[in-house]
Amino acid sequence: MTKRLHGFDIDAWELRWRGLDLNALPRTESIFALSNGHIGLRGGLEEGEPVGTPGTYLNGFYEKRDFPYAEPGYGYPQHGQSLVNVTDGKIIRLFVEDEPVDVRYGHTGEHERVLDFRSGTLRRDTVWTSPTGRRVRIRTERLVSFTERALVAIRYEVEALDDDLDLVIQSDLLANEPIDSQGGDPRIAAVLDRPLIADFAVARNYSALLAHHTAASGLRMAAGMDHELEAAKRPRCDVHAEEDLARLTIAVDVARGDRICLTKYVGYGWSSQRSVPALRAQVDAALAAGMETGWDRLLERQRAYLDTFWSNADIEIDGDPEMQQAVRFALFHVLQAGARGETRAIPAKGLTGPGYDGHSFWDTEIFVLPVLTHTMPVAARDALRWRHSTLELAKRRAHELRQAGAMFPWRSINGEEGSGYWPAGTAAVHVSADIAHATVQYLAATGDTEFETECGAELLVETARMWASLGHFNGDGLFRIDGVTGPDEYSALADNNVYTNVMARQNLWEAAEICRRRTDLAERLNVDEAEVADWCASADAMAMPFNEALGVHEQSEGFTRHARWDFDATPADHYPLLLHYPYFDLYRRQVVKQADLTLAMYLCPNGFSAEQKERNIDYYEQLTVRDSSLSACAQSVLAAEVGHHERAYDYFVEAGLTDLHDLHDNVTSGLHIASLAGTWLSCVAGFGGMRVCGGEVRFRPRLPPALRRLSFRILWRESRVEVEITGESTRYRLLSGAQVELWHHDEAFTLGTDPVVLKVPPRESRKAPKLPAGREPYRRDA
Amino acid sequence: MTKRLHGFDIDAWELRWRGLDLNALPRTESIFALSNGHIGLRGGLEEGEPVGTPGTYLNGFYEKRDFPYAEPGYGYPQHGQSLVNVTDGKIIRLFVEDEPVDVRYGHTGEHERVLDFRSGTLRRDTVWTSPTGRRVRIRTERLVSFTERALVAIRYEVEALDDDLDLVIQSDLLANEPIDSQGGDPRIAAVLDRPLIADFAVARNYSALLAHHTAASGLRMAAGMDHELEAAKRPRCDVHAEEDLARLTIAVDVARGDRICLTKYVGYGWSSQRSVPALRAQVDAALAAGMETGWDRLLERQRAYLDTFWSNADIEIDGDPEMQQAVRFALFHVLQAGARGETRAIPAKGLTGPGYDGHSFWDTEIFVLPVLTHTMPVAARDALRWRHSTLELAKRRAHELRQAGAMFPWRSINGEEGSGYWPAGTAAVHVSADIAHATVQYLAATGDTEFETECGAELLVETARMWASLGHFNGDGLFRIDGVTGPDEYSALADNNVYTNVMARQNLWEAAEICRRRTDLAERLNVDEAEVADWCASADAMAMPFNEALGVHEQSEGFTRHARWDFDATPADHYPLLLHYPYFDLYRRQVVKQADLTLAMYLCPNGFSAEQKERNIDYYEQLTVRDSSLSACAQSVLAAEVGHHERAYDYFVEAGLTDLHDLHDNVTSGLHIASLAGTWLSCVAGFGGMRVCGGEVRFRPRLPPALRRLSFRILWRESRVEVEITGESTRYRLLSGAQVELWHHDEAFTLGTDPVVLKVPPRESRKAPKLPAGREPYRRDA
Repeated sequence: MTKRLHGFDIDAWELRWRGLDLNALPRTESIFALSNGHIGLRGGLEEGEPVGTPGTYLNGFYEKRDFPYAEPGYGYPQHGQSLVNVTDGKIIRLFVEDEPVDVRYGHTGEHERVLDFRSGTLRRDTVWTSPTGRRVRIRTERLVSFTERALVAIRYEVEALDDDLDLVIQSDLLANEPIDSQGGDPRIAAVLDRPLIADFAVARNYSALLAHHTAASGLRMAAGMDHELEAAKRPRCDVHAEEDLARLTIAVDVARGDRICLTKYVGYGWSSQRSVPALRAQVDAALAAGMETGWDRLLERQRAYLDTFWSNADIEIDGDPEMQQAVRFALFHVLQAGARGETRAIPAKGLTGPGYDGHSFWDTEIFVLPVLTHTMPVAARDALRWRHSTLELAKRRAHELRQAGAMFPWRSINGEEGSGYWPAGTAAVHVSADIAHATVQYLAATGDTEFETECGAELLVETARMWASLGHFNGDGLFRIDGVTGPDEYSALADNNVYTNVMARQNLWEAAEICRRRTDLAERLNVDEAEVADWCASADAMAMPFNEALGVHEQSEGFTRHARWDFDATPADHYPLLLHYPYFDLYRRQVVKQADLTLAMYLCPNGFSAEQKERNIDYYEQLTVRDSSLSACAQSVLAAEVGHHERAYDYFVEAGLTDLHDLHDNVTSGLHIASLAGTWLSCVAGFGGMRVCGGEVRFRPRLPPALRRLSFRILWRESRVEVEITGESTRYRLLSGAQVELWHHDEAFTLGTDPVVLKVPPRESRKAPKLPAGREPYRRDA
Repeated sequence: MTKRLHGFDIDAWELRWRGLDLNALPRTESIFALSNGHIGLRGGLEEGEPVGTPGTYLNGFYEKRDFPYAEPGYGYPQHGQSLVNVTDGKIIRLFVEDEPVDVRYGHTGEHERVLDFRSGTLRRDTVWTSPTGRRVRIRTERLVSFTERALVAIRYEVEALDDDLDLVIQSDLLANEPIDSQGGDPRIAAVLDRPLIADFAVARNYSALLAHHTAASGLRMAAGMDHELEAAKRPRCDVHAEEDLARLTIAVDVARGDRICLTKYVGYGWSSQRSVPALRAQVDAALAAGMETGWDRLLERQRAYLDTFWSNADIEIDGDPEMQQAVRFALFHVLQAGARGETRAIPAKGLTGPGYDGHSFWDTEIFVLPVLTHTMPVAARDALRWRHSTLELAKRRAHELRQAGAMFPWRSINGEEGSGYWPAGTAAVHVSADIAHATVQYLAATGDTEFETECGAELLVETARMWASLGHFNGDGLFRIDGVTGPDEYSALADNNVYTNVMARQNLWEAAEICRRRTDLAERLNVDEAEVADWCASADAMAMPFNEALGVHEQSEGFTRHARWDFDATPADHYPLLLHYPYFDLYRRQVVKQADLTLAMYLCPNGFSAEQKERNIDYYEQLTVRDSSLSACAQSVLAAEVGHHERAYDYFVEAGLTDLHDLHDNVTSGLHIASLAGTWLSCVAGFGGMRVCGGEVRFRPRLPPALRRLSFRILWRESRVEVEITGESTRYRLLSGAQVELWHHDEAFTLGTDPVVLKVPPRESRKAPKLPAGREPYRRDA
């Protein structure tokens, strides 16, 4: 409880930062971000400054910008999309006897901030002494409501500690906040200068509302605020609104030892269709509902929502308190990213920062949706519904790229391709198979026939059509997919990337399966038997490059004949390699940024023999530098499978601490939602050995040597199952729902109301291969 | 002589356009461009308007511009370079009784323009009637002096045909001419708006001078003019200079039937080092010298210079008058591009237009320098000296790309990489081997030991060092060069591109050869025996991908396993493919933009057996769409070699008429100098079968069926040789110099003062393969 590392106290159910550290502020803004998947607030201080990157986001609210190309080319996307920092409603400024509260001045005595995983709130407690010696305590708590989707609430309390004080509080709505440019790092979002154009401003009583729109994307938004004030003395209040600022000013005298407490409700709405009056009405209604509910009941509902989530999703870890905290932190943020997206994308950074321009990538489907599928399936469904809602755009893109079916964008907010570098964007076609994979996994876990009927089958069919047109049979009778880019971004435009091919194969098979099973849907989608037969023939003949001499798969055809990267000559400070070496040199060598073949072996476990998995892992581990946060968790899963038990745990730790310890030095621009989700994968698919194949769920649990006990929960069809792994055995428990058929280490069993305890068969630990110099898994300080 | 096609009369020694055709004006501006390799003037009308693209260029005078990237990456060039349209000195405006002469108004009766290949001048003869009925004849002749490198001269004569006329002549220097943007075609230069910043302006008597500099590249230039006037009546003259305009105004009465004749001398100078006064002095000196020489002697010197050129370079064609003209047109423009560059690059468009931003590419070395090497070796030497002058930049670039030695830029004016799309720029590393190849060819043809000592050996050594570091030995004992782009721009980032590998192999062998022969240079360049041995080992083990089943080389490893482009489904108006299909789809299929393997078989003839050449040609012809103007000539050469005699001639015609018939619909942005040079290659290397290997020159002449006789001349060491090919035999004649050893169809012979006539051994014509639908060679109208 008292160990402090990287600023945070270690505690099972909360994340606490004690003391003031201005340098750490930018990254704690991401770490302490609150979101319900619809609204996101970075965890900045209420007084607005000092600030790293201000950030208030509405899922799907973006601005378009023209893409510049030094040399243009046919089919290049002409516009990029960038998540917009919308009207900031969390600002509450305080003046103590004319002096603005600013922790850079005066003296900040006590200062702590707590993200509470069970209350779903961010709390703050600061004692600040002004330069002239006046002392106040500021206590705040804020939430982005999981239950009232359009609502933010902030409780703001000031106590006069030593003297009677004249206080002025300004509660703002502030649009077009200045944002510092973030330099040339390609991973940081393009910053938009003043993206919002004012449409309307109104102020009345304690409330105000601002409406804006974006110039190029033409989206409209409105933010409104209302307040409740508890104060011993009657304050003098003034409210005012202009284009980019609305402000409630409260001037009040607070006696020594007394408090003033302001509750601020902020409502948001946005639309590409609705008018300003309609948006205003929507925001006013959200505020009215929020005021009626009131702070205390909002808190209660938030806690109840989280109680349900934890009862479905919690993971317990005995033997490593920091990882216990890290896992819950991860689950909390995955929930925040996905909870109330409701047919919007789940961005790579959630709504925690401007990184990657707020885009969604394939990692949502491959890393995030498995977690949601088994803990909050409705959120997984909604994320897939978003993909389905962009199907027409994906079909148009396929047509533009001269393919049949649908090609989903590499990165996007609105469903249009937003990648400005096609060899690692457009060419990374696996994203379409990844979406199909997530669809199949969701359907297997939920049996959601409504979704299957409305969306699922069509997603599978249109992606299968794309693969059938993209690949071709060559003379050897193999079905080849040439000139594509797999997950590993240190290779590009290769032939027969194994990941892409096995995922495409699965996509084709699954599309065939659903069309044979649901002939009604096949008919609606104009799929005939010949097309299904063509898919199966293509899938059955899929090329899988294999180096017989080495006995390993080739990540892509020819990969194992490339020169090995000279790891010994690469200084430790030259990682990530992409910031120090040209793609030209990276692409032509054996060096792997992130799990690629490794990930394929996890996602398509039956496509590889146990021996192949072992040999492949032994080979590719030596080449994988984990310059992407998407890697450690996947490597953890496979390390666990092939018997590198300590290595598996090390990767689990790395994935879990990626953001908490800022391992990629870019948390300031947002959290790595996929890596956070990967922490769950590491526990459930790694140590729990869970695989969903052919509509069945199988476990091969093994407790990591570092732990005494590990338990997790999953939703499977109508049931909720707990898996508790100890040293020699695993206990399966049905927490709710009907009995289920499960597998434990190749043994099928039925789990009913009585727990089932099964032995873990013995297995030798295998020695893990040497990793590239300097790229050993992250180690916590002793 | 009277056949008119595409506007031009067919004549052996000139190119004449009769009549006014405003639509054709932009492309005739390129066709009629004059240049001495240092100064270039597009062939616009003297009166400045109407105009397609104004253009006055100084070789090497460019502006820098920041490169935009939608997604930046390490090692991407940060700046592009663009050739600047400098101060226009060829403008002479005429006013007839207050009405400006403008062929868009009034009536243009007679109008013709003639580019004369022997006088080296552009002549014009226009009879124009003003809207109010006044008729004048305007005769002009202009030259860019081959002998006075900094000088342009224009003779401008006006005759009053029917009445006494008040004429006003304005002779201008005009900087920052407005240029229309040229739309989104990636092949057209980025247009720079007002690139010149005024430094100095002066006017005195009949002369004036303007000095400017560029903002970003910081280059300085000055343009000056002076005039001689012949007129019956004394004119009223005024001269004036301001920032971007200097003007001599001449008002004169011309009696009916009388003439006024103005001779304008324009001098240019530029420098990155010298001050404005120094540049002014240089331009003034050039003008003084030009005035002293006078128009008539300038004409004489120009003709004498060209007489020498033609005596070394002329090709005679009996049986196809249009191709006779085309070949001389081609040679004339190759001369203009290369003559007086003097350690500056030879751009892809020469100095005829803004296309490709005025950059030089690999085609200078591979297509243009062979012509110059054998007709004007001093120009070839100077072009290679330019490459050598950029060696430090090329070494820096190699270092940046983590390679040893030197990597030359894909496109450049100043020696820095100017490509904004690295897969088809930086990755096209063959450019370095191409430079080495041209160096070796130049040294073989000239025995220029001074150049070998100062530049040649170093060019070979530093490029060899790059190849040795770029490639690697794999387990099979092969030396591989992975992840590069060959000449064919419809493939990229492939392994073991045969063109690249054979050219690199040759580069390594030749570097080893020169180091063993010139141990003094090896020592100076720090080459030891181990390094030479390493080069040879690498070269000897060079991978050469070959598909045994098909019996053909793979353009790159795996190429023949790719899907064939669906030519039947490609509409004729979808060429060039790059403007209608994404690189994503092009790269992954068997479709070839331009000769790649075919070019390799020409440049490294001993790397392939005769049977391999036949099989390769039969295979790759069917895939090659010639979307690049660099293709037809190379295909012509190989078609001739493998016995596709009619196809060879067809390609020769296509190469020769590329610009005259505007086959790529982009002549308006400049001529295709490499394709023009390729017309020579087609004659000499194709029909003449000339190859230079191992310091020997070999011929395998065969007269194309369409011709009665073909003769060409080459310089070889100290000698000048004429090769005259007729139906059954070839006559070799020593025009000057010492006796030489030559080869005729595998038979060595000595050519002394007596001509040698040798029979052409019989050979079957082979049936040429079918070409992609709609991509048959260009056919002249019947």
